[in-house]
Amino acid sequence: MTELQTTHGRQFINGRRVASGEPTLTSLRAHDGAPLGPRFYPATREEASLAAQAAGQAFSHYSQTAPEVRARFLETIADELDALGDDFLTLVHQETALPLARLQGERARTSGQLRLFAQVLRRGDVFGARIDTALPARLPLPRPDLRQYQTALGPVAVFGASNFPLAFSTAGGDTAAALAAGCPVVVKAHPGHMATAEQTALAITRAVEKCALPGGVFNLIFGTDIGAELVRHPAIQAVGFTGSLRGGHALFQLAQQRPQPIPVFAEMSAINPLIILPQALRARGQALAKDLAASFTLGVGQFCTKPGLILTLRDDALASFTATLCAQVKAAAAQVMLNASTLQHYREKVDALASHPAFTLLASGDAADGCAEPRLYQTSASLLLAKDPLLLEEVFGPLAIVVTVDSEAELLAVVGALQGQLTATLHADSDDRDAAGRLLPLLSEKAGRVLFNGFPTGVEVCDAMVHGGPWPATTDARGTSVGSRAVERFLRPVCLQNAPDALLPPALQDANPLNLLRLVNGQWTREALSPSVD
Amino acid sequence: MTELQTTHGRQFINGRRVASGEPTLTSLRAHDGAPLGPRFYPATREEASLAAQAAGQAFSHYSQTAPEVRARFLETIADELDALGDDFLTLVHQETALPLARLQGERARTSGQLRLFAQVLRRGDVFGARIDTALPARLPLPRPDLRQYQTALGPVAVFGASNFPLAFSTAGGDTAAALAAGCPVVVKAHPGHMATAEQTALAITRAVEKCALPGGVFNLIFGTDIGAELVRHPAIQAVGFTGSLRGGHALFQLAQQRPQPIPVFAEMSAINPLIILPQALRARGQALAKDLAASFTLGVGQFCTKPGLILTLRDDALASFTATLCAQVKAAAAQVMLNASTLQHYREKVDALASHPAFTLLASGDAADGCAEPRLYQTSASLLLAKDPLLLEEVFGPLAIVVTVDSEAELLAVVGALQGQLTATLHADSDDRDAAGRLLPLLSEKAGRVLFNGFPTGVEVCDAMVHGGPWPATTDARGTSVGSRAVERFLRPVCLQNAPDALLPPALQDANPLNLLRLVNGQWTREALSPSVD
Repeated sequence: MTELQTTHGRQFINGRRVASGEPTLTSLRAHDGAPLGPRFYPATREEASLAAQAAGQAFSHYSQTAPEVRARFLETIADELDALGDDFLTLVHQETALPLARLQGERARTSGQLRLFAQVLRRGDVFGARIDTALPARLPLPRPDLRQYQTALGPVAVFGASNFPLAFSTAGGDTAAALAAGCPVVVKAHPGHMATAEQTALAITRAVEKCALPGGVFNLIFGTDIGAELVRHPAIQAVGFTGSLRGGHALFQLAQQRPQPIPVFAEMSAINPLIILPQALRARGQALAKDLAASFTLGVGQFCTKPGLILTLRDDALASFTATLCAQVKAAAAQVMLNASTLQHYREKVDALASHPAFTLLASGDAADGCAEPRLYQTSASLLLAKDPLLLEEVFGPLAIVVTVDSEAELLAVVGALQGQLTATLHADSDDRDAAGRLLPLLSEKAGRVLFNGFPTGVEVCDAMVHGGPWPATTDARGTSVGSRAVERFLRPVCLQNAPDALLPPALQDANPLNLLRLVNGQWTREALSPSVD
Repeated sequence: MTELQTTHGRQFINGRRVASGEPTLTSLRAHDGAPLGPRFYPATREEASLAAQAAGQAFSHYSQTAPEVRARFLETIADELDALGDDFLTLVHQETALPLARLQGERARTSGQLRLFAQVLRRGDVFGARIDTALPARLPLPRPDLRQYQTALGPVAVFGASNFPLAFSTAGGDTAAALAAGCPVVVKAHPGHMATAEQTALAITRAVEKCALPGGVFNLIFGTDIGAELVRHPAIQAVGFTGSLRGGHALFQLAQQRPQPIPVFAEMSAINPLIILPQALRARGQALAKDLAASFTLGVGQFCTKPGLILTLRDDALASFTATLCAQVKAAAAQVMLNASTLQHYREKVDALASHPAFTLLASGDAADGCAEPRLYQTSASLLLAKDPLLLEEVFGPLAIVVTVDSEAELLAVVGALQGQLTATLHADSDDRDAAGRLLPLLSEKAGRVLFNGFPTGVEVCDAMVHGGPWPATTDARGTSVGSRAVERFLRPVCLQNAPDALLPPALQDANPLNLLRLVNGQWTREALSPSVD
């Protein structure tokens, strides 16, 4: 077990701890906002620039490392994270109020994610190797030898999330994917869990040293308004972000206004519609009501995939479903949110709903000081069809809104009015199958993941996962920030024409030393090529 | 052989010819700017909007068509293009001054490209199928069944190129890739070859009808400043563009400022550095000089991949290489460019080079009225290191600039100063191998394609091709606009969780009816899955 190191509060730049000025930032206890002790130095503009430069300087070495070197590096980070003792989880708990059991799971998920990318590197999907061999006798013109592989995009700036201090933060999915791709990283630590960020960064730094990689492979800076500096820096070639629509959109705009625009993969905002079709409602309305209340209040409703909009069809079974749902919400406890500002945003949304005549409060849990109480509202489909922002925008917290429609046609219209989503869920029994078949293409247009008879809170880290979706769920529907495909965001294809075999990267060499599955002359194969004349 | 239809000059919207107002646009003869006869109606804002809407309405049907349906559609378009007689090529020649033999080749390339995408659809790469089957007994939590595939992004606006009236225009690579992906298309016809665009659109329309597809699958509008209207339209979900940096950047900015930003794949500007290492220069300097002059004057230098910057190392063999290169340039004929405005841009660049003290004219061909004469300039490495825009920016036309450096270190510095490129070329013999090995990673950072001992003008349409590269070569280094991978730009992943087999798309069904190679539980396989309990 690795003991926690004393807090320095300084930036991690090029393998060193650096700071100037005063340590004006304070880590706060989530439960009451009291200072936890450790203080942090906000990065200066120069330090942000140095961090980006360090990543830029490490790029040429790190991007050319063998996949096995990167795989071991990711596994070493995973081992270092797993070796952190209970003190570490206690620290994370203090900064975020997230329960220890959840944090234990989140840590396992974070190290498991790093190990998945190590596997992906060994499997070699990341290279996307494609070879068209020369056709010297082809008429009217010969074809040269053409070989395509994917290579690292460049240094990546990562902005971690408040709600996943481990899995979507310093050593989270964006960092793991970028490092797997061969891209050095600069993390902007989330101000809500700076001590967590520092201990995680120390774990990564130990892995960098153990693997004898350049210090600039991983950098981290503290600060509250220094992110723009990073995104603007010419060395940075991509951005990974998990957070609010406002924050993600602002960084996106900045990145597009650079002299050289760069891609931004921001995961931002979703209300994750959950549709209950009639037979499912009738057959298991009670169980659905209980599970649904548990899902949208889980973790104080602080999941990106929280089902915030419940769509039902008018039906005799609806009354008892709604009654059970209300009873569950009333019985659910108020809980501490991630921090004071999160709670305040929740209160503002609750106030906005209260003062909007079209929303009816169906149930709420008991209030408690400094806590967010679960809330269930109802409104009409017409508000959705009118694209009322209050209904279309995410409420971060334990709150859901029920909308009941009169017909399948209205349901299709309502779904059509929704913005892009991370998830969409369909509860459908066998008699609902035809309607489900009609809804599925539309839901697939709207969301990155479509679930049947389940709940969206819970994102499996695997090859098939998509945690993404059309705007405003993310800035780029073509990516996912969870699962092995996340690495694709930080890769670009390069084609080598008539390159001598000795100069080709191993992924493209005739002998296929990495034993990759490659697309050779239109056929997928692991076979080596007969050596070309060199 | 299909005879040319009489010019209507009207927009193609939802399978109909539509126009309001007056036909104020005229097709011009490239050789002298004289009106060719046909007149065209500039699309009104309403017509642009109707075209985007038509594509939007066709989306839900077309995006769900079976891959075989789309493959046959692409092949039918190819057949229709091939069936156009010599009249068609004569018309294209009149509008662009491109020689008939070249246009014959370009037409074959265009129909071949459509047929390649048909093959890709049958091979099934486009689906990127990944399946992680359920693990109901896993602890602490079971894993659901998760299946990912790629689906169409949405309607695509395509802006064709002036220099490839067939292969990068109405039925060109962007259109073919979008249609293969399942995305309906709205083409903005290039004003330089409107009659060509109309005949091509008629060929596509015949294919739409033969395949009984919705009319909105393909739309085309004429006009000179109507593109922004398309890009802003909410139904449009992606943009494909080939043209100038200024035009591409403007559309890119527009697209990012939409309430819902959308991806723009613009192929824009490159100077395509070509490096000759010492042994190659000594061994075959004369042949290199001849081939190089032919390459940068080919097609009046109007290729995106024209080698515009020639980098050599100081060497005794340099003088005779340069002398031969100059002799070739002097002997090369002046030729007619695509249109008057292209010639004018060329003249402006020539004037700018003439008035810049750091550039020396080494050779030029004989001038001729209304023609562009080949030109060869020389300048110093210091100008490149200072990132002088005149040296970094593309000159569209038969012009190249030679820069000689003193050492390999200076060569690496000069390459490091370059912007993103479509191609980079290295001429290296076996004794140059070590230097080539040091240059290759840097060239791969800079360009989408790196060639050895060849010339970049000539882009093979195949699986391994990359016609793309870092900004300003394109707006998105992660894409290619030529080759089968171009289809990826118009796809996004969707994950289906616990979906009943009957509702899954064929690509993800247990039985694997499309016989796809799929990533199942971390292994690539064509095997069917044992049926799940449904």
